[in-house]
Parts: sequence; C-alpha cells; structure tokens
Amino acid sequence: MGETDVLGSHTVSEAEIVAFARKYDPQPFHTDPEAARATIFGGLIASGWHTCAIMMRLSVEAMQREQAVGTGSPGVDSCRWLKPVRPGDTLTLRREILETWPSRFKPHGFVRSRAEMLNQHGEIVLSLVGVGMFRRRAEETA
Amino acid sequence: MGETDVLGSHTVSEAEIVAFARKYDPQPFHTDPEAARATIFGGLIASGWHTCAIMMRLSVEAMQREQAVGTGSPGVDSCRWLKPVRPGDTLTLRREILETWPSRFKPHGFVRSRAEMLNQHGEIVLSLVGVGMFRRRAEETA
Repeated sequence: MGETDVLGSHTVSEAEIVAFARKYDPQPFHTDPEAARATIFGGLIASGWHTCAIMMRLSVEAMQREQAVGTGSPGVDSCRWLKPVRPGDTLTLRREILETWPSRFKPHGFVRSRAEMLNQHGEIVLSLVGVGMFRRRAEETA
Repeated sequence: MGETDVLGSHTVSEAEIVAFARKYDPQPFHTDPEAARATIFGGLIASGWHTCAIMMRLSVEAMQREQAVGTGSPGVDSCRWLKPVRPGDTLTLRREILETWPSRFKPHGFVRSRAEMLNQHGEIVLSLVGVGMFRRRAEETA
C-alpha cells in the first residue's frame, strides 16, 4: 500500500481538445479558441472528461506493460478538476495504490487507487480516487 | 431542490463504443467483440468514461435548450457504473438538482446534481453526483 508510480505522459494538442469537445462537451471554452478568450479561463481548455479519458488511456497502457488484466470497474469515489488543461500541456499520470481486497468472484480482486495528472509545471490538474477490478495473479490466489 | 428532469436520449452504436475505446480505453471488452465474449461481460460493453462523455453531451444540449451558461466544474463527488452499456442501448439522462449556492465570484453560482443514465429497460447504468458552475441569471443576482 502507499506505493506510488509514475505511469506515463501525454501532450495534449488543441486539435485533440476541440475534437473531443465537439463530440462530447461542446461548451465554447472547450471548442472555440476565440470565444474561450472571453471566459474566466482566458483561452481554450480541455473538457474535464477528456482529461479523465487521457488518464484512462495512460492507465491501460501501464496495465499492458505490467501484464495486469483489468476486468471492469464499479466506479469513481471522487474526481476533482483542480487546474485548467491547455493546448500543449504535457500531462503525467501518477498513481498511488490505497487499498486492495479480493472479490467474492475468484479470481478477481479490487484495487482502490488515487490517480493524479500533473502538468509540465508540476501542478496537479486532476485528482481522482477510483476502484478497478483485476484478475489476480496465480501466486496471489494459490 | 429535488426537481427531477429527463434531459434527452442517445442510442449507442457498436462503432461508437469501439472508436472511443480504441482512443481512450483500449481494453478487449471495449474494443473487440470477439474477445469480449470470453470476459465476464459476455460481449462488448462501452467504456464507463464513454458513458460519462455521452452524459455530458446530453447535459450540454439541455443547457443550450434552457439557455443556461455553464462556466466550468470543480469535479464529481461520486460516479458508479452500475450496469454494462451494450451496443444498441438507448440511454436517457435524468437529472435531479440537489443543492445550489452562489459563488464568491459574481455572477457565478454552483449547482450540485445527481445525473442518472437509464437504459431502454429502465435500469440505471450510471449514477453520478457532480458540481457545475453556472452564470446566474440577472433576476437571481438582482
């Protein structure tokens, strides 16, 4: 427990921010760089759901490297969008394992973890606590 | 408070599930109908983040109809993916306002609401409590 890992990075482009937002979160500060200037953000920012989706992508890539097999998720306990994500920002995923417990359904187990996305200035832009379900490794269920 | 509204519907296609997942959540039960059959889900299911993104889209469309101006969000208090979302499912967004309060920064205000996505069988597939920031209408700040 308390183990913290840095799991990967992604640089967010303006085109990517606008494409995601046009499809899923078409508010002017996510889709229109001009209109975004007049908002409290002073420019285009990524949808918070887009930041979550990028976090998930980095998590899945890490699972693949670790040969961990995810088997679903009951949900998220809390999610805070702490700072705006802007075009060109490089986001790095940091994960801390908070708790693990076996499922009644073998061979699955649960992991509660805190995921933080940091920008290139070291600021936490997203902090999320969620639960994932995983296939337990043979040595854990023996 | 306690006001509940039905805000819109969306039918989720297999192509859409796979496209989202390839980009943001490339686990086999989200990207590969064949491989998904061997998982505990018994077939392809949407990424939970995709369901959240569709919920956001329906929320933004409702805001546009209501001429409500969203000005950001601090985050989500809890999010539960209660049932799998499968290709062809029609999801309907139901929203209940839980709490509202003014921001220190006029003319903004906060709304805490529960969003539920129901499938065509009336089952709740997603239940989420989140906070949104909005521009208060003139009559509310007068």
